[in-house]
Amino acid sequence: MYRPEIKVVDCTIRDGGLANDSHFTMETVREVYKAICASGVDYVELGYRNSKEMYSPAEFGPWRFCDEEDLKKATDGIDKGDTKICIMMDAHKADPDDILPADESVVDMIRVATYVKDADKAIRLAKNAAEKGYECAINIMAISIEGGPSLNEALQQFEEETEAKAVYVVDSFGALYSEEVHFLIETYQMYLKTKEVGAHFHNNQQLAFANTIEAIIKGANFVDGTLYGLGRSAGNCPLELLLGFLKNPKYNIVPVLDVIGREIIPLRDEIDWGYHIPYMLTAVRNEHPREGMAWMKREDKHNYADFYKTLTEDPEQ
Amino acid sequence: MYRPEIKVVDCTIRDGGLANDSHFTMETVREVYKAICASGVDYVELGYRNSKEMYSPAEFGPWRFCDEEDLKKATDGIDKGDTKICIMMDAHKADPDDILPADESVVDMIRVATYVKDADKAIRLAKNAAEKGYECAINIMAISIEGGPSLNEALQQFEEETEAKAVYVVDSFGALYSEEVHFLIETYQMYLKTKEVGAHFHNNQQLAFANTIEAIIKGANFVDGTLYGLGRSAGNCPLELLLGFLKNPKYNIVPVLDVIGREIIPLRDEIDWGYHIPYMLTAVRNEHPREGMAWMKREDKHNYADFYKTLTEDPEQ
Repeated sequence: MYRPEIKVVDCTIRDGGLANDSHFTMETVREVYKAICASGVDYVELGYRNSKEMYSPAEFGPWRFCDEEDLKKATDGIDKGDTKICIMMDAHKADPDDILPADESVVDMIRVATYVKDADKAIRLAKNAAEKGYECAINIMAISIEGGPSLNEALQQFEEETEAKAVYVVDSFGALYSEEVHFLIETYQMYLKTKEVGAHFHNNQQLAFANTIEAIIKGANFVDGTLYGLGRSAGNCPLELLLGFLKNPKYNIVPVLDVIGREIIPLRDEIDWGYHIPYMLTAVRNEHPREGMAWMKREDKHNYADFYKTLTEDPEQ
Repeated sequence: MYRPEIKVVDCTIRDGGLANDSHFTMETVREVYKAICASGVDYVELGYRNSKEMYSPAEFGPWRFCDEEDLKKATDGIDKGDTKICIMMDAHKADPDDILPADESVVDMIRVATYVKDADKAIRLAKNAAEKGYECAINIMAISIEGGPSLNEALQQFEEETEAKAVYVVDSFGALYSEEVHFLIETYQMYLKTKEVGAHFHNNQQLAFANTIEAIIKGANFVDGTLYGLGRSAGNCPLELLLGFLKNPKYNIVPVLDVIGREIIPLRDEIDWGYHIPYMLTAVRNEHPREGMAWMKREDKHNYADFYKTLTEDPEQ
């Protein structure tokens, strides 16, 4: 019934860190890490390793940088089981020299997040990671506004020039419908003859889980989720729904349910992620949620008709 | 780009009434009705017409009975446009004699909700409605636990013995995945040669909108939604998402956005609908959400691992 090739990546701390400038407490990170390892999920992503030249450590929390010392504190004494640790580097905001050789690090996989225009920067980081002994993957962001020859060329380059295990469809805007997911997975598969396709979807239109299922049906074997969908604005594919769908007996949903109740639900006091009309509207228009995020900080945030008007009015008038 | 045959039914007041015993204020019902008419949505369902012998008017609000007098108060003076009014009758909880001839009623369509086992009661109500001059439709509830010869026989009877315009797939438990939706739509189409297939999905696994899209792709032409997904437990397919997906220029999303902010968001103070782990777990197990609803009333409702244990423990032990 299940497809053993499918690998699940929990990116609660990494992606959720976009919603709180990566300011999770050490206790929360340890509890999430422990629960993911206990659940048998294949990878757990504990944050970004981005450059301290580009992000201020005074402003951003430790999980924006993932110093080896912090990663050790987060993971020490916890049974890892078969779960691997990954971190993410932004192609345009990370320094290859910030990565130690893999045998001196607690990290197993490095994921490089990139826009199509930064493909060559992504390749540099992916090669650097592979040379230092890490598994690696490449996440192509904002895929709903990419396509055509630039995307195809990037896919061809990733296939030929990197050792990435997977290249991801990342629907940053939460804009994709199922038929578009099918089309993108098929396009990726045309170019990625030796690599897996990955799927990372945002939940602006309540389609993150559904689109992940559609990607799996089409053959995607790397799929991302976060606990209770935690993430910036509308959030992500909820990991617990994914585990409920996949029938692989190696996964145990109980530690996931337990940590959601203890560690993730209380975060709702400070982070208001989930379905909100402004995020749905930016997605329907295939736009970044930033205008919706700004609107959601207003006193009159529930005046959705006014928000719609600001989104759609002709700037020339 | 769009399929003109598709009819959208807003069932906010009817389905939402399961969450508050149909106790909406007259002002809320009028505002919802006005917004739906202004948006050009095809049908608006204002409640149940169930028997006062089976539901106590002391306990349940007016929208459980939809007396003609209340419907008149809710709709008087509002421009109806092309929107039709419907009400629902439960096959096992309604009396055919409670229906006036259509030309003495403000109602245009009667939808009969039924389990497969009550198919003959549903046929009696559907025939009665058609004889009195109404459009009618039949909603087959709890479809995720139906199937086989009983379902096929019911579909054949509905095809042959009623004038229903549409027969619905109703995923009461929010349990269906896309491939199961495809299978059910195809099964219905095999029997319903002269009728449309309808789609009504619940959101326990955040799949109500996605499954509605899948039903549309397979040919379903009657689709239900509620404002902001309002409904019992996890709620329904959000109407605003549906209008964002459908490209029919006759629909105007602005009145829908406006009424959500003014009338539906404030209801969150009294009704806690939406995605919650207990509703997701009952759906994954293909069960009615009632155990999840009871759990959500507890002080320790976020102790999801304990809820999972009560759901899954062997009653024999």
